[in-house]
Amino acid sequence: MTAIATINDVFQLVKAELEEAEAAYSQYLQTNVSLIPKISEHIILSGGKRLRPVLLILTMRMLGGQPGAGTTMAAVIEFIHTATLLHDDVVDDADMRRGLAAANTIWGNEASVLVGDFLFSTSFDLAVDQGNLKILKALSSATRKLAEGEILELMKTADINTTRQDYLDIIEGKTAILMAIAAEIGALLAGVEDERQQQMKAFGLHLGMAFQMIDDVLDYTSREESLGKAIGIDLEEGKLTLPLIHTLDKASPEEREKLREIILADYVSQEDFAYVYRLINKHEGIDFTLREARRHIDAAKQIIAAYPDSPYREALNFLADYIRQRDR
Amino acid sequence: MTAIATINDVFQLVKAELEEAEAAYSQYLQTNVSLIPKISEHIILSGGKRLRPVLLILTMRMLGGQPGAGTTMAAVIEFIHTATLLHDDVVDDADMRRGLAAANTIWGNEASVLVGDFLFSTSFDLAVDQGNLKILKALSSATRKLAEGEILELMKTADINTTRQDYLDIIEGKTAILMAIAAEIGALLAGVEDERQQQMKAFGLHLGMAFQMIDDVLDYTSREESLGKAIGIDLEEGKLTLPLIHTLDKASPEEREKLREIILADYVSQEDFAYVYRLINKHEGIDFTLREARRHIDAAKQIIAAYPDSPYREALNFLADYIRQRDR
Repeated sequence: MTAIATINDVFQLVKAELEEAEAAYSQYLQTNVSLIPKISEHIILSGGKRLRPVLLILTMRMLGGQPGAGTTMAAVIEFIHTATLLHDDVVDDADMRRGLAAANTIWGNEASVLVGDFLFSTSFDLAVDQGNLKILKALSSATRKLAEGEILELMKTADINTTRQDYLDIIEGKTAILMAIAAEIGALLAGVEDERQQQMKAFGLHLGMAFQMIDDVLDYTSREESLGKAIGIDLEEGKLTLPLIHTLDKASPEEREKLREIILADYVSQEDFAYVYRLINKHEGIDFTLREARRHIDAAKQIIAAYPDSPYREALNFLADYIRQRDR
Repeated sequence: MTAIATINDVFQLVKAELEEAEAAYSQYLQTNVSLIPKISEHIILSGGKRLRPVLLILTMRMLGGQPGAGTTMAAVIEFIHTATLLHDDVVDDADMRRGLAAANTIWGNEASVLVGDFLFSTSFDLAVDQGNLKILKALSSATRKLAEGEILELMKTADINTTRQDYLDIIEGKTAILMAIAAEIGALLAGVEDERQQQMKAFGLHLGMAFQMIDDVLDYTSREESLGKAIGIDLEEGKLTLPLIHTLDKASPEEREKLREIILADYVSQEDFAYVYRLINKHEGIDFTLREARRHIDAAKQIIAAYPDSPYREALNFLADYIRQRDR
């Protein structure tokens, strides 16, 4: 049995398949319109973690799927992920409600919208060529939920009455659903029956929920260098995530009123951020969120514990712990 | 034989099916996320011509398809069209659409991008439920070409070296391809063989090419009230369309230099526009474009002339002439 001791071992296990997928990314972006590969490759080749392709391939292999059978769908999932990143950038840049004038040139937004559309359509086009209606249904209903989640997040911007359920709906749509179908499509490619397909979907969904919760914790706790963005960007953009929602629930009326003012303000000062961060610590918003993330990781691990031991199962197990341990 | 004497007669012929499609639009937009129907219905119910659904239904009926069989796909095509309008308005930074405030000016670019994405995904989700891989392939390859066309247009913005071939590629993608698959899907729903499917696709493509050429002529010749937008908006946005491309080809070096300056300038004055318009008339850019549009209309009519006479064929024929006669 291969021992999986580091995240590198996980990637090593499916190295050949990931390399095949990397080659496929460029191949599928061939077009006469030169701006398309330029922008797509800039973002696709700029060091994404390839978490979704890895999840798809590991799941497929654990369930007996053949090497190489997941290459196209791995590219499809990564393209959809990339398309949402391109559109998210437009959405976040164009946030006029927060008084942050779009820093990007108009050219940047236009190209991001359209190249995102191209990646979405290309994903469906590649998936259609697989000729599997079950895979297509998984994909189309997932992207629909993805858009719903993003729109719900937009609607709840700077809304201090955002509930935990709103938050769960938002992160399920914007993050977890795509990891859910990565694992589900892995199962479909391996040709397993409905029950195991649903289990894999649930496995991916739990990983995705935990992944986003950890991300939302890191937004408060991490530094610019390690996360690649400024501290507290969610607060600045009026995104209420679980650490803050939990804190709003526990806060005194005075604290809540102060939080309300900061959330509604166009500009969040370093002082304001420090105040919010102190309150979150006081009411244990970070710990609460980490506990919730751990519950999802445990649920995910429990699902695959019922499967026969294999390097792929071991790698998926490691991946689950790896996601949880991002909480530093 | 029903006599088709006005555009109303065309709509009357498929009234029941269009009403069924209208009901489907609202039904398919049901979601818990209230912003989605609000924005979608703002644009979908604001008086679009329903040209694509009409084309799909007429084609399907001409080829023997059953009433009602095209409802879902008519909604799919209209949703894709609507999604591109939402994204186009973000790209063009448009203030007006169909004589109403553009969605992005009311709800912001963010909402337009994401609701456009929702409509795209919903379209695919509905199409997948039809369970027909040929229809899905037509749809996915068309939306891919659509995005390519839009990106090519973006790349050629304010580029005075834009060729006729560039222009043809752009309008095929951004306009004609969706009309082509409306007719093609009509044929697929009627269950005809490949040859007639390709003929219907070509029929729709010709209509779409002519439609966009006429649109580009109207951008120079029409008034704000009748077109719902300001005169010469293409020039203002740096979009080189056939009347201007033809004129650039025919212009003297001095004229070309003056045109180049105007096209590259950030702001187009009334005087500049008048100069460009005079040059276009001098070099017969409008007449040339109208002749090209007529060629496409004739080609479209020739395709259906080979089919047995029916009210549906008559209506499609009328529709072709109607598109051409927008040149006023």
